[in-house]
Amino acid sequence: MSSTIKVAIVGASGETGQSIVDGLLGSDTKFHVRALVRPESISKPINADLQGRGVEIIPVSLTGPEEKLVEALSGIDIVISAIFFGSLDQEIHLANAAKAAGVKRFVQSAFMVVIPPRGVVDFREKKEENLNHIQKIRLPYTYIDAGWWYQITLPRLPSGRLDYLVPSTQPQNPIGLDGNIPSALADIKDVGRYVARIITDPRTLNKRVHVYNEVYTRNQVYDLLENLSGEVLERDYISEADAKARVEEARTVLEQNPADFTAFAKLSTSQLFYSWGIRGDNTPEYADYLGYLSGKDLYPDFEYATLRDYVVDALEGKAKGVYQK
Amino acid sequence: MSSTIKVAIVGASGETGQSIVDGLLGSDTKFHVRALVRPESISKPINADLQGRGVEIIPVSLTGPEEKLVEALSGIDIVISAIFFGSLDQEIHLANAAKAAGVKRFVQSAFMVVIPPRGVVDFREKKEENLNHIQKIRLPYTYIDAGWWYQITLPRLPSGRLDYLVPSTQPQNPIGLDGNIPSALADIKDVGRYVARIITDPRTLNKRVHVYNEVYTRNQVYDLLENLSGEVLERDYISEADAKARVEEARTVLEQNPADFTAFAKLSTSQLFYSWGIRGDNTPEYADYLGYLSGKDLYPDFEYATLRDYVVDALEGKAKGVYQK
Repeated sequence: MSSTIKVAIVGASGETGQSIVDGLLGSDTKFHVRALVRPESISKPINADLQGRGVEIIPVSLTGPEEKLVEALSGIDIVISAIFFGSLDQEIHLANAAKAAGVKRFVQSAFMVVIPPRGVVDFREKKEENLNHIQKIRLPYTYIDAGWWYQITLPRLPSGRLDYLVPSTQPQNPIGLDGNIPSALADIKDVGRYVARIITDPRTLNKRVHVYNEVYTRNQVYDLLENLSGEVLERDYISEADAKARVEEARTVLEQNPADFTAFAKLSTSQLFYSWGIRGDNTPEYADYLGYLSGKDLYPDFEYATLRDYVVDALEGKAKGVYQK
Repeated sequence: MSSTIKVAIVGASGETGQSIVDGLLGSDTKFHVRALVRPESISKPINADLQGRGVEIIPVSLTGPEEKLVEALSGIDIVISAIFFGSLDQEIHLANAAKAAGVKRFVQSAFMVVIPPRGVVDFREKKEENLNHIQKIRLPYTYIDAGWWYQITLPRLPSGRLDYLVPSTQPQNPIGLDGNIPSALADIKDVGRYVARIITDPRTLNKRVHVYNEVYTRNQVYDLLENLSGEVLERDYISEADAKARVEEARTVLEQNPADFTAFAKLSTSQLFYSWGIRGDNTPEYADYLGYLSGKDLYPDFEYATLRDYVVDALEGKAKGVYQK
C-alpha cells in the first residue's frame, strides 16, 4: 500500500457509515476516502458535506453493470460496506467488483451485536451468506461486529429529559429475564475509530473481530441512569416465552406481507432483542467462542467513551441521538 | 477430565470411524471408547470385532427419544460424529443430546477436503449448517478437515496392478485443467491418529483444524506412480467448463428424483472434484484463509506415511483399499 491508503465506502450517509468516515478522516493514518453513492441520492446535502470534508463522491449503482463498479473501485486498497441491512443482497455485487478490482481487503456490512450465524436473527444469516460468498471468491476480508450502541441503550426518563435522544421509531425495550444478562456496548462515535485501526492491522486480515467499549447488564444500565439522574425508573421485565412470542408474532405479520419493510424491521428488532436481551449472545465470551479476535486484546491502548461519560452528556443535553435527521 | 478420557463415537464402522477408533485405541493417551450403534445394525460383525478390542457398544437411535441419547452420552467427555454424509441431518439430535449431557467437546462429521462453506459442494453447506447449530446452542466443538485420502488418490495402472485398491463404485477422475492444481492428501490410517491428538488439545477447542500429510498436484501423483511402477499412464485432462457441466448434469438427474441417493452421491462426487480438482480449494493456504488452524503448526512432530510410502506398499500388493468390505 502507498503511504495514503485508499478506502471506498458504501453507505457513508448511514449512522455506521458516518462514524466510519469520521474515524478515517480523524485517524493518524492517512486515508483517502471515496464514497460510492447511488446516482439517485447524489444531491442529498450529506454528500456536499462529505465532499467539503475531502471525501471523493462517486455516483455508481451496485446493481448496475459490474464494469462501472470495478471502475469506481480502481486503485482502491480497502472497501468498506456499511450498506443498509435491508439491502444486503446488493453487497454480493460489491464483493465481486472488489475481487475484480484487486482490492486488498473487504469489510462487509456486519457492525452488529454478536449473534449466532444462523437460527436466531434472520438478517444475520444473510450476513453469513455474504461472508461465505466472499470466502468462495477468496476475497481478503475482515468481519467486524461492534457492540450495541450507547445511543440506543438508555431507557426514557420519567421527566422526559432523554426523549431528545430516542428515535421516534424505536420502541422502548423491556428488560430480559431478571435483568442480569450482560451485553457489550459501544459509543457509535467510537465504532469508526475502531474500524480505522482494524483495517490497517495485518492481524485482522481474514478474521472476525469484535470491538466494544464496556459490558453492562440492563439492571446496571438502569442503576447507573437512576444514580446519575436522581430519577426512579420503572422496570418492565419480560420472560423468554413472551420474548419468543413477540418474535413469532412479528414473523406471522411479515409472512402475510413479505415485501413490507416495516414488518421485516419489526421482526429484526424482536429477534435482536431476543438474542442480546434473552439469550445473552452479545458478550465478549460468546464472541471468543465464535472465533472473533477481541478489540480489547488487539488495542489495549484504545481510548473510548464510557457509558457513564455518555449518560452524563445525555443528561446535560449534550449527547447526539441516532436516526434523527 | 479424569485420567481416562471417555469418547463416544457415531459411525465407528465407516472408513473414517474405523481410523478414528484405531487412532484412539493406539494412542498414548488413555481413551475409553463407546460406540453408539443403530439398534438395527447391532449384529454386524464389526461390532463384535470392536467389542473384542475393548470398545463399549451401545445400541441407540439418533432419531429416537432424546433422553435415551442423553443417557448413552452420560459420563462422556468427547463426542465424535463420523456419521455418513447422507445422514447429516441426524447429527443435530446428537449435538442437542451432547449439550444436555454436558459433553466437553463435540467433533462433528467434517473429515473432508477444504471446501468453501457454501456455494460449491451441497453437502458441505449441510456441515456448515450443523456447525452453526452447534454454535447456536454453545456446544464446545472442534471442526476437523483431514485431506483427500491416498486410498482414493491413485489412478488405475494399465497392468491392473492397482485394481485391488480401487473401489468398484469409484469412477476414475480425469485431471483438472493442466494438472498443476495442488491438493492436500492424507493416509486414511493417519486421520484417526490426528484426531486423537486434536481432541485432547486445548488449542483446538472451538476451532477449525486442517490436517494433511502432503500436498501433490495430479501431475506429480502421476509422475510418482509412473516412476515407481515403470508403467506409462494416460492423462485425461478436463476443462473447467466440462467439469462444471458434469456438476450441472448430475444436479439435473438428482432434481428429477431428489430421493435417489445414488444421484446425490454422483452430484457430490462431481462437486468435490470441481472443488479440489478445478478450483483448487483443498490447499493449506485456502484452509488458512478460511480460519483453520494447521496440523503442521500444531503437531510438527507428527509422523505420517508419505504418498511415496503408500505407493510402494500399493505396488507390492500390501496396501488396503477403502469401501471394499
